[in-house]
Amino acid sequence: MKVEIITIGDEILIGQIVDTNSAWISKELNKAGFEVERITSIHDDEKQITETIIQSLSRVDVVLITGGIGPTNDDITKNTLCKLFHSTLVFDEYTFKQIENLLADRPLALNELTKTQAMVPDKATIITNTVGTAPITWFDVDKNKVVVSMPGVPFEMKKVMSEEIIPRLKKKYKPNSIIHKTVLVSGYPESALAIKIAEWENNLPRIIKLAYLPQFGIVKLRLSAVVDCDYNYNTIVNEIDIEIDKLKILLGNSIVSDEDISLEALIGEILASKLKTLSIAESCTGGDISKRITSISGSSRYFKGSVVAYDNSVKTNILDVNIEDLQTEGAVSETVVRQMAEGVRKLLKTDYAIATSGIAGPMGGTDDKPVGTIWIAVCSESECIAKKFHFKYERNLNIERTTQTALLMLLEVINQN
Amino acid sequence: MKVEIITIGDEILIGQIVDTNSAWISKELNKAGFEVERITSIHDDEKQITETIIQSLSRVDVVLITGGIGPTNDDITKNTLCKLFHSTLVFDEYTFKQIENLLADRPLALNELTKTQAMVPDKATIITNTVGTAPITWFDVDKNKVVVSMPGVPFEMKKVMSEEIIPRLKKKYKPNSIIHKTVLVSGYPESALAIKIAEWENNLPRIIKLAYLPQFGIVKLRLSAVVDCDYNYNTIVNEIDIEIDKLKILLGNSIVSDEDISLEALIGEILASKLKTLSIAESCTGGDISKRITSISGSSRYFKGSVVAYDNSVKTNILDVNIEDLQTEGAVSETVVRQMAEGVRKLLKTDYAIATSGIAGPMGGTDDKPVGTIWIAVCSESECIAKKFHFKYERNLNIERTTQTALLMLLEVINQN
Repeated sequence: MKVEIITIGDEILIGQIVDTNSAWISKELNKAGFEVERITSIHDDEKQITETIIQSLSRVDVVLITGGIGPTNDDITKNTLCKLFHSTLVFDEYTFKQIENLLADRPLALNELTKTQAMVPDKATIITNTVGTAPITWFDVDKNKVVVSMPGVPFEMKKVMSEEIIPRLKKKYKPNSIIHKTVLVSGYPESALAIKIAEWENNLPRIIKLAYLPQFGIVKLRLSAVVDCDYNYNTIVNEIDIEIDKLKILLGNSIVSDEDISLEALIGEILASKLKTLSIAESCTGGDISKRITSISGSSRYFKGSVVAYDNSVKTNILDVNIEDLQTEGAVSETVVRQMAEGVRKLLKTDYAIATSGIAGPMGGTDDKPVGTIWIAVCSESECIAKKFHFKYERNLNIERTTQTALLMLLEVINQN
Repeated sequence: MKVEIITIGDEILIGQIVDTNSAWISKELNKAGFEVERITSIHDDEKQITETIIQSLSRVDVVLITGGIGPTNDDITKNTLCKLFHSTLVFDEYTFKQIENLLADRPLALNELTKTQAMVPDKATIITNTVGTAPITWFDVDKNKVVVSMPGVPFEMKKVMSEEIIPRLKKKYKPNSIIHKTVLVSGYPESALAIKIAEWENNLPRIIKLAYLPQFGIVKLRLSAVVDCDYNYNTIVNEIDIEIDKLKILLGNSIVSDEDISLEALIGEILASKLKTLSIAESCTGGDISKRITSISGSSRYFKGSVVAYDNSVKTNILDVNIEDLQTEGAVSETVVRQMAEGVRKLLKTDYAIATSGIAGPMGGTDDKPVGTIWIAVCSESECIAKKFHFKYERNLNIERTTQTALLMLLEVINQN
């Protein structure tokens, strides 16, 4: 069962915001057995909205729209849908009560404009937005086709998609299942991995589709199959598992996980299962490693805390970095990064510690230590490994890569110990 | 001059990655005077790629494609473009040398698959990818139309867009200028702001288009104008400035900036100009505030560092939180968050400090303190403000909103002092 997503809003097309809704919707639809055929982002423009919906409906049965239903003048999706589907706006008492309740403690926000949000198309099914003022409209275009208009605000859209739209779509269309299994491989460039597993790939059963998703330091291999009624779901899951087992023999320890899991979640699972703890001393990464570690629910089981030692005084006063070493060798040096890691490990009394010190740029580079020069240390009770890297990107990418590299180094250490 | 963007890759349509390329390309094109008409994400599928390019070319003159040009079997964009534009793949010595140089220190990555990247369409202009193995192909479809195929890897695409594609497009099309000016307003819900400025909005010169971009705690108002040859660029910049001046009179201190600037950049500008310093004690935000502050180049001028005090022992041992208060009132309390802020301010010797302590969820909530209960404190030498919030989202959004709220609180304090 195929779906198209349309996201509406000038702010997307001038690059003021990134459309994160589509990826989230696609992922959730996939889990529910729907395939996203196309994602289209267009302007708040009547002609474009109308034409795009008509085209999408000519290709697929389900069209999901986000955005363009706020109360201000630049939002025209509701009126455009009314015209397209020969509907009239009518005042909906129930929707209005919902808006009143929602804004009970925000008197400023309950005003003539938000009240217009209770005007809804008479020929649509209205689905309540429990966390925002714009109601969701569901148009049954003919017996088999559906157009749903949702808010562009991500958390409003997510709530109504999970709780209302996906259950209703599943009930209406009874879709095929889609199976995705993902294996994470470290230590191979994408092309070298492709050569290494070429024979395995060529011998995959035809129903299994393989995709390479390279990330920095990791290649995700995704095996997918659409299970239609001719096949048995469990048989295919089994076939995929058999292929993954073959891959494990081929790649050994390079497979770091057979789940589609983030590096921080994987590290968390291992630390929690080994009852080990972690602390971090961050200079150039400025909190980024800690943020990734703590993005995992339950990270308090193994993560004790960090010191973001941006200023050198923090390195010496809190982390006990030797002031003379700092002066002679500079903050971006093996000696200092090792002392930072050892310092934070002792200070916070943890089993493992990471430290970073580098020049993220664009300022601060020298001939000796150009922008992108980064030292990373990972220490346990028994060893302390420090490595130097030269990243060649802009500031935030240098930071992101340092974080990713530090997590990969930590993964290696905790897998050994 | 209008452009369409096509992003190719199954991983986008199953939601495995967010398409951040399109937003970046749109922003850069806008600055250069090009308007993005539509963004379409499609599968690695020959028929879909071909049809989408043909449709885009029927609407606009410039079609920019990212993705689908890796060396592995799932990437078919290059071959599809060859078929579509009646081109043949030929071996390009220069491209091959580039790839060899690029991979000189990564022997594993130089192999038969990466060598296929030197096979290029004979009827395209080949633009060197200086940071990756996939060359960029530029097809002049007829006198006026252009199709460009770029890598999907963001930093590779960004480099070639900035250094090659945009300069070539500007030379070929000599586009109109687009002026965007953005004003940041705090303290108003979007609808209340729209009512407050309705008269001003209605009286805007027709050439100026207004858009509302609400974010948490901030509404961005964007005034835009496309300057074609009938108008004078400076006259219109002037007209927009006059309207912004009127808006400033109307909204007073609620306008926190007349630049399209992030909250962390705005805070940085103010702290740097006042020669004041900042430190942070993060519990539930786990490094997120520090990460945002240090994402700004030059933040070392005013940011000294942070303590991510995830475990209670870090709160008491490092930040000097009173252990009895912690036991009686709990970590998520006014007393503790104030002590954390004061503690880090004294420890790192800064003018201002932020502290956060809360339950980000999904675990850890109680009847008394449900998930989303967050305390934030902002302290200066003269005052310490603490506020309690109840966010009702999932973990990462609770963290994001806490960070945004903490930064807004800090902005208010540093603007007063």
